[in-house]
Amino acid sequence: MEKINIIVVGYGNIGKYAVEAVLESPDMNLLGIVSNSLSSSGIKEKDGIRVAADAAEFETKPDVAILCSPTRSIPEIAPLYLSKGIHTVDSYDAHDSIWELKMKLSPVAEANNAVSIISSGWDPGSDSVVRALLLACAPNGVTYTNFGPGMSMGHSVAVKAIDGVSDALSVTIPLGTGIHRRAVYISLEQGADFTKISEAIKKDPYFKNDETHIFEVDDISKLLDVGHGVSMSRKGVSGKTHNQMFEFNMRINNPALTSQIMISCARACMRQKPGAYTMIEVPVANLLPGSLEENVRKLV
Amino acid sequence: MEKINIIVVGYGNIGKYAVEAVLESPDMNLLGIVSNSLSSSGIKEKDGIRVAADAAEFETKPDVAILCSPTRSIPEIAPLYLSKGIHTVDSYDAHDSIWELKMKLSPVAEANNAVSIISSGWDPGSDSVVRALLLACAPNGVTYTNFGPGMSMGHSVAVKAIDGVSDALSVTIPLGTGIHRRAVYISLEQGADFTKISEAIKKDPYFKNDETHIFEVDDISKLLDVGHGVSMSRKGVSGKTHNQMFEFNMRINNPALTSQIMISCARACMRQKPGAYTMIEVPVANLLPGSLEENVRKLV
Repeated sequence: MEKINIIVVGYGNIGKYAVEAVLESPDMNLLGIVSNSLSSSGIKEKDGIRVAADAAEFETKPDVAILCSPTRSIPEIAPLYLSKGIHTVDSYDAHDSIWELKMKLSPVAEANNAVSIISSGWDPGSDSVVRALLLACAPNGVTYTNFGPGMSMGHSVAVKAIDGVSDALSVTIPLGTGIHRRAVYISLEQGADFTKISEAIKKDPYFKNDETHIFEVDDISKLLDVGHGVSMSRKGVSGKTHNQMFEFNMRINNPALTSQIMISCARACMRQKPGAYTMIEVPVANLLPGSLEENVRKLV
Repeated sequence: MEKINIIVVGYGNIGKYAVEAVLESPDMNLLGIVSNSLSSSGIKEKDGIRVAADAAEFETKPDVAILCSPTRSIPEIAPLYLSKGIHTVDSYDAHDSIWELKMKLSPVAEANNAVSIISSGWDPGSDSVVRALLLACAPNGVTYTNFGPGMSMGHSVAVKAIDGVSDALSVTIPLGTGIHRRAVYISLEQGADFTKISEAIKKDPYFKNDETHIFEVDDISKLLDVGHGVSMSRKGVSGKTHNQMFEFNMRINNPALTSQIMISCARACMRQKPGAYTMIEVPVANLLPGSLEENVRKLV
C-alpha cells in the first residue's frame, strides 16, 4: 500500500495533536513539521519529528499539508502550498467568511491539480455535516447547536489581546436553545483596572451579545482544560409528519478531535477532484481508510 | 427554477409518505404514482394523484423514480427504470447484500447516464452517514447502534408468513450496547397451536439470536404505532487521545423519515455523476434544496 505523505504546518496546540493523529494512521507517513519559529531557533527535530522551514526541504514531495496555523493566516498560507500542487487541509473557523475562502482557494487548487479541504474540524466540520443531514431528514423545523461547557480558543485569545490582561480563559456555558453564557477568567498586569477591563471585554464583538461574567484569578493555568462539548437538537417535519426528534451530543478533547478530523480529511484530498471543498461537499466515505467495499459492508 | 419531475413507484406505507414529502418539496413536481395493483383495479387517481401502470404513460419523462416497492423486488425493478435513463432511489435494507446491489445497478446506471441512490432511509441511510462520520472522528473504539422501542417491519412480515398466524407485530426493544429484545404480538387462525408457532418464531433467522417473547392478542391493530427510534453511541480515540464520547439519538415516525430521506436523495440524483451510490458516498450538501453557497453560509 502506498502511504499518504503528510507534513504538519505549524506546531502549536492543534499541530501537536495532528502529529499524533498522523502517527496513529496506518495509511499515512509523516515527513515532518514545517515551522518557521522552530526552524529559525535552529531546531531541526522536535519530539522525534524532523523540523523544516519549508516544504521543499523534504526529499519526498508531500501529498498533503495539514495547516495548523492560526485561522487568520490560512487565506495567505494555503495558496503557497496549493500552487505547488500540494493538497491542503485547514480548520478555518471564521463562519461568516468560509464561502469567501472557498472562492479564493478553489481556482488556485484547480489550476494546480490540487485539493483543499477547508474549515474541517468539529464546528465548522463534523457538526456541519450533522446539521445538513438533519435538514435532509426534516426540512422544516429548528436546529439548536449548544456548545460547552468548555474553553473557547477564539474568545480567550480576544481577551488576552486587551491591554492590562496578562492571561485569560473564556469558558462557553450552554443555557439551551442555542443561547450561551461566557465565564471569563483573567489575570491582570500590575496596576491594571479590573472595572475598565471588564467593560472592554463586555463591549468586544466576541462578547457583546452574550451574558458575560468576569472573574479575576491568580493563575489561569490551574483552570485550563481543553475538554469541550456539543449538544445539538432538531425537532422538525418529515413530509407532512411533525414532531420528528433528533439529537447529537459529544464530550471531547477539543484539539484532539479537531486535528483527527483534519487528518481524516487528508484522505479525502486524495479522492476528490481538484478544487476547494467544505466538509458538507465531501462524501463521508472519502474520510475513511480502507476500500469503499470494506466500508460499505461495515457501515451501511 | 426548473423542478425535478418525480414518480413514486408503489403505493404502500412508504409510497404514501413519499407522495407527501414530494408535495412538500418546493423544488419538485409529482407526475404521479406507478402502481400495477391500483392500475389493474381500474384506479386512475388516488388521493388526488394520477395513477399509471407504467412510467411511459406520463407526457413528461420522469427525472427520478422513488422505488417504494418491497426490498426484495428492488434488484429487479431498479434496472427497468435505469435502463430508460430514469434515476432511481430505493431504501433496500438487506444490509448483507447492499454492496452486491450497488455492483448490479452501477453498470446499468452508467450505461444509461443515470444515477441510482441505493439503501437510502435511516438504517441503512442517515445512520450509516453518522457511523462513518464518527469513525472519522475517533478511528479506534466501539460504536453501538440501539434500535427502538419500535415496530420492525421486516420482523413483523417474517412472523406473518408463518402458517397459522393471521396477524403479527414485532417490537424491537433496546437492551443497550447493541443488544435487543423482541416482543412479538400475534393473533392466530382458528385451531392454530400457540406453542408450535412460538417455537417456529424462535427458530426463524430473524429471531434466533435475540431474546424473544411471544404474546397472543385479539386485535393487533390496537397496538400499531409506526414510531421508532435510534440511540447510537461511540466512545473512542482521536489520535492518541482516549475517552472521546459521541451520541446520536432520534425518536421518529419510521415511514415518514424513510420516505423524506429518499426524497432528499432524489436531489442528489440530479447532482452526482452516473452510477449507483450508497448514502456514505454522497456529499450531504447534495441532499438539500437551494444553492451550494446558501447551504455553506447557513450550515458550515
